[in-house]
Amino acid sequence: MRILITGGAGFLGSALARRLLADGVAGTRVEQIVLFDRAPPATPCTDPRCRALTADIDDASALAEAIGTDITHIVHLAAVVSGQAEADFDLGMRVNVDATRLILERARALGTAPRVVFTSSVAAFGGNLPARLPDDARTLPQSSYGVQKVIGELLVGDYSRKGFIDGVTLRVPTISVRPGAPNRAASGFASGIVREPVAGQPAVCPVSTDTRMWLQSPRRAVDNLVHAIGLDSAALGTDRTVSLPGLSVTVGEMIDALREVAGAEVAGLIRHERDPAVEAIVASWPGDFTAERARALGFVADRDFASIVRDHIADTAALARAAI
Amino acid sequence: MRILITGGAGFLGSALARRLLADGVAGTRVEQIVLFDRAPPATPCTDPRCRALTADIDDASALAEAIGTDITHIVHLAAVVSGQAEADFDLGMRVNVDATRLILERARALGTAPRVVFTSSVAAFGGNLPARLPDDARTLPQSSYGVQKVIGELLVGDYSRKGFIDGVTLRVPTISVRPGAPNRAASGFASGIVREPVAGQPAVCPVSTDTRMWLQSPRRAVDNLVHAIGLDSAALGTDRTVSLPGLSVTVGEMIDALREVAGAEVAGLIRHERDPAVEAIVASWPGDFTAERARALGFVADRDFASIVRDHIADTAALARAAI
Repeated sequence: MRILITGGAGFLGSALARRLLADGVAGTRVEQIVLFDRAPPATPCTDPRCRALTADIDDASALAEAIGTDITHIVHLAAVVSGQAEADFDLGMRVNVDATRLILERARALGTAPRVVFTSSVAAFGGNLPARLPDDARTLPQSSYGVQKVIGELLVGDYSRKGFIDGVTLRVPTISVRPGAPNRAASGFASGIVREPVAGQPAVCPVSTDTRMWLQSPRRAVDNLVHAIGLDSAALGTDRTVSLPGLSVTVGEMIDALREVAGAEVAGLIRHERDPAVEAIVASWPGDFTAERARALGFVADRDFASIVRDHIADTAALARAAI
Repeated sequence: MRILITGGAGFLGSALARRLLADGVAGTRVEQIVLFDRAPPATPCTDPRCRALTADIDDASALAEAIGTDITHIVHLAAVVSGQAEADFDLGMRVNVDATRLILERARALGTAPRVVFTSSVAAFGGNLPARLPDDARTLPQSSYGVQKVIGELLVGDYSRKGFIDGVTLRVPTISVRPGAPNRAASGFASGIVREPVAGQPAVCPVSTDTRMWLQSPRRAVDNLVHAIGLDSAALGTDRTVSLPGLSVTVGEMIDALREVAGAEVAGLIRHERDPAVEAIVASWPGDFTAERARALGFVADRDFASIVRDHIADTAALARAAI
């Protein structure tokens, strides 16, 4: 297995690379990983099987170099996040649509129908949603990010149907707790309201505590990406897109879990200040899914939010030790 | 009203132009029509308000000329049809996706949020479908044409949400009876099995007579395009795509109606010879819709297939008289 990860210097790409190098995929060793990103990884990957390639994701010649004839798997994580894609429509189209097409075309040109794992989002859905979204719910995205991700889903599906690639799209729940600096995702607060208080910093909660979120921890997200890399695509039938299982909690329940795990003083660092722009995007997303198909395919979810908070604290401590 | 029609030299674009010049839109006179197509109209439009512009639909500079500052409405009909988009993936992407994006960008550049009417298709749907498709059915296209049309739907929706255009997408049923020469649409037989026998020519039916089709006559298609040009988009809410009402009939019922209207000798000109490639595409499309939303919005359907056959015979005769 020779795996290209776009967005490979990001927290999810880096965590995936570490896991792949350590554990392989279902018993198969990983021979090489190429981390493609616009910036080099914050912590350089020291494994000799690992190589960083620094270029913009819409740089066709850099992609041609990255997706060389020996690449067997591509995990396409690079994206302009929701808040930024809404603020800069053209940038979102260029990265989320045009660069995805460049990657699919390069993968097609290999002639080997490589596995391509693409990440979509709960933002694929919107409009008048039932309380719990069934697997056959229609996509009616209400943000440019969601529209761009659904376009990617459609292309991954058609390139797979045509035999150009062997694609799998995962609709990933909002990831919490995302480590590192805040980004411009509208869902960024779902990490910030834990990450910042745990680090002794104040945080702002921009939405009502009644807001229901569909969450996945970084650990489960990595589990599911690895599972998608090794998945037998025959099980997917005519639909290459899988809405991942997740944890359905309200923002109030998230804060309660933080208080339970880290104490009232830590939870007290959250200030409530609603932001209508963020609320409009987040409220258009579903907060609960049946995700029966994904579970049957072997994808996994977190048990409860308190465990997610505890894992975040443990992972942050481990990263701090590793950096010393 | 100054209206650009792409695919304006095609049978539907020409019929729409004639109707718009004759009747206007809900009492408003049409000042100008630009017929944009790769070939000039077979019968030149002699109305002084009418202008033909001959260029490829992915010619950005020709589109820039066509979508001048005075254009108030765009009807985007130009497309690579289903059979051809399946046979030539890259051509389908270039015309059905890239050229649609060029048109949307030009419309956005006007700064006036013009009405854009885009035509999608029953091919937006596929997979495991209920006998009668509800309005909230998910899109799961099983052909490249369907994928490309759904991408157009998504973009028209997002450009409208952002206020760049005021868009309406119509998912048009299979049009029958389409006049003129056969094209490479997988659904072409739905016209051919009437058009050719009525003209005394043999025709091939490539699908089972049990195949259920969702049809619309050219007259009703023009009615619905005119209605979409004049529609108050506030009624569309968060979903700019409308699945048009249609007529649900089996291919066997279509042939029975032809026999009823034109006689057994005419119906006897149909030879049955199944084509698996055509059947695979057509069988993936829904044959019946509730179309409640479209009816509530004022869109219309044909009464029965015998009327469609009679209208076809009358329209063909009228065109023949006009050409003399």
